[in-house]
Amino acid sequence: MNAPLHLHVEVNPRSMLAAAFTPDRLQAAAAAFPGLLQGISISYGGGPADFDRHIATADALLLTGQADLTALEERAPRLRWLHYTSAGVEWLLGGHFPPGLAITNASGTHEPKAAEFSLLSVLMLNNRIPELMNAQQQRQWRQLPAPTVAGKTVVILGMGALGGAAAGALKPLGLRVIGVSRSGRPHPAADAVHRTAALHEILPQADFLLITLPLTPETDGLLDRAALDLLPRHAGVINIGRGPVLDAGALADKLREGSIGGAVLDALPVEPLPAQSPLWDVPNLIVTPHCGLYDPVGYGPRCLAMFCENLRRFRDGAPLAHVVESDRGY
Amino acid sequence: MNAPLHLHVEVNPRSMLAAAFTPDRLQAAAAAFPGLLQGISISYGGGPADFDRHIATADALLLTGQADLTALEERAPRLRWLHYTSAGVEWLLGGHFPPGLAITNASGTHEPKAAEFSLLSVLMLNNRIPELMNAQQQRQWRQLPAPTVAGKTVVILGMGALGGAAAGALKPLGLRVIGVSRSGRPHPAADAVHRTAALHEILPQADFLLITLPLTPETDGLLDRAALDLLPRHAGVINIGRGPVLDAGALADKLREGSIGGAVLDALPVEPLPAQSPLWDVPNLIVTPHCGLYDPVGYGPRCLAMFCENLRRFRDGAPLAHVVESDRGY
Repeated sequence: MNAPLHLHVEVNPRSMLAAAFTPDRLQAAAAAFPGLLQGISISYGGGPADFDRHIATADALLLTGQADLTALEERAPRLRWLHYTSAGVEWLLGGHFPPGLAITNASGTHEPKAAEFSLLSVLMLNNRIPELMNAQQQRQWRQLPAPTVAGKTVVILGMGALGGAAAGALKPLGLRVIGVSRSGRPHPAADAVHRTAALHEILPQADFLLITLPLTPETDGLLDRAALDLLPRHAGVINIGRGPVLDAGALADKLREGSIGGAVLDALPVEPLPAQSPLWDVPNLIVTPHCGLYDPVGYGPRCLAMFCENLRRFRDGAPLAHVVESDRGY
Repeated sequence: MNAPLHLHVEVNPRSMLAAAFTPDRLQAAAAAFPGLLQGISISYGGGPADFDRHIATADALLLTGQADLTALEERAPRLRWLHYTSAGVEWLLGGHFPPGLAITNASGTHEPKAAEFSLLSVLMLNNRIPELMNAQQQRQWRQLPAPTVAGKTVVILGMGALGGAAAGALKPLGLRVIGVSRSGRPHPAADAVHRTAALHEILPQADFLLITLPLTPETDGLLDRAALDLLPRHAGVINIGRGPVLDAGALADKLREGSIGGAVLDALPVEPLPAQSPLWDVPNLIVTPHCGLYDPVGYGPRCLAMFCENLRRFRDGAPLAHVVESDRGY
């Protein structure tokens, strides 16, 4: 008989997700998998004080928010699986990871909210809401009519879980959907998908540019001033991926010059964005503080269901789903 | 042989629609109806100076924006048809109209944009955009997560062209759509439609209340403080109908108290809203200056196509479409 598995659940109390990953919620999600937690010992923690003690014996770690993951080989000698309850793992992958440690993430659990927030952002830019908000602040009755979005073109950068969900939400409104991805693989909701190498040829067609990319060495700074200058003057830019993919300073300059239409940034270059950042009051820029994709009702249950399915596989020695590939970075 | 028909086209140059109703645009729209303008003499005007001279001999009047329509029996003795290129005719109907004068309007031409703007407004309120905009103005990183709209309830007041279009846009997102109308007649995109008498029983169910009503003696002030107090505290209110249907002062009080979630007002109690109006800076209120439903590309052609079809009927002595019924007011 094997020794009982030790699962440690570490929830950073400052994480927006913390309330979704309580012991009760985990038990409720596990109820859909009969017998799943039998023979598994579970510890719960929420801060550095007890983290070392818990991971010293843990076989598996469920992590919400950030934690110190340096020198895991020494501190967590038995650890074979780390599940991170978010999609972006770039901060995890900067460190050194023990060989044989499987890392999984919550890729896909953001899909319904990503679809809705992408739709909202495109409609806000199409209907000139940033300009209307500026006019409202100046108490000015300034009528700014706008045609419907039907027939306009949205270029979606990244056609993974987020980009695909966005394409599925935007296509029914009659938008032309052009995807840009590493593989260039076709997507059922996109009229065409091109490889990233063709990005500069595609940008001039974009009425809206929707960035959904993870942060990797290849995507870091991909949307620089030269790329932004290829967009039409009326174009709207949306970032729901990772902040450093886009040169927000260059975007701000273009918004101030009026050489681009408007923008919605849910992902910022530094988070939280400090109060003194010049980005807060750039004209025609809407800042949403990285909460646009988070669904406080649906996200936790979807994420825990995915974790429980993987826990079943881990216990049975089956291949895990949603494994982060360290060579591509997501 | 009949005397040639005289059609006068009066376009108020201050109207947001003025550019859509030029002689060229009318000719282009008429091209779809072969021979339509043969034997019709057309005059064009844009102001009170020549208006009297033109209408003195006009059989038909195409009117964009407002004009002085008092004493038409004396000033326009031959006038048998007035087409107004907008949907709301309450200011026309306040006056006295010669018996036998048919009045038609552009009911239905706003549908595609009404669908889009309703969808946008519901998504802005669901995603707490008004609160996020207030936080941005204060340079505060305040994460305000929101569940998806699926499963929430929108109550649509008025199930005519605007309300029906809105229902059709909102239903596919998984919203429960409850209509309230004079007739209570079922609508294919609504889960249920109730008569206006049941309004106070329906309001407590509304996560979102979308007002699309015309202004009539029955709708004037319908959404007063007592009605608004029946909404849940988190509810969002949208007005794309006519301003006086909603007591905007009571709504503003509730927004300041925090006893209602947020609002998007495209229709205001006075238009243009004066700079000194307290409505400009009510928390969680988005003011769009009555331009949300106007599509500067699609509206003119749709409206002129509708006018040309009616002109054909008028010339042939056939019944006109989109006739405003003076007893119900729309």
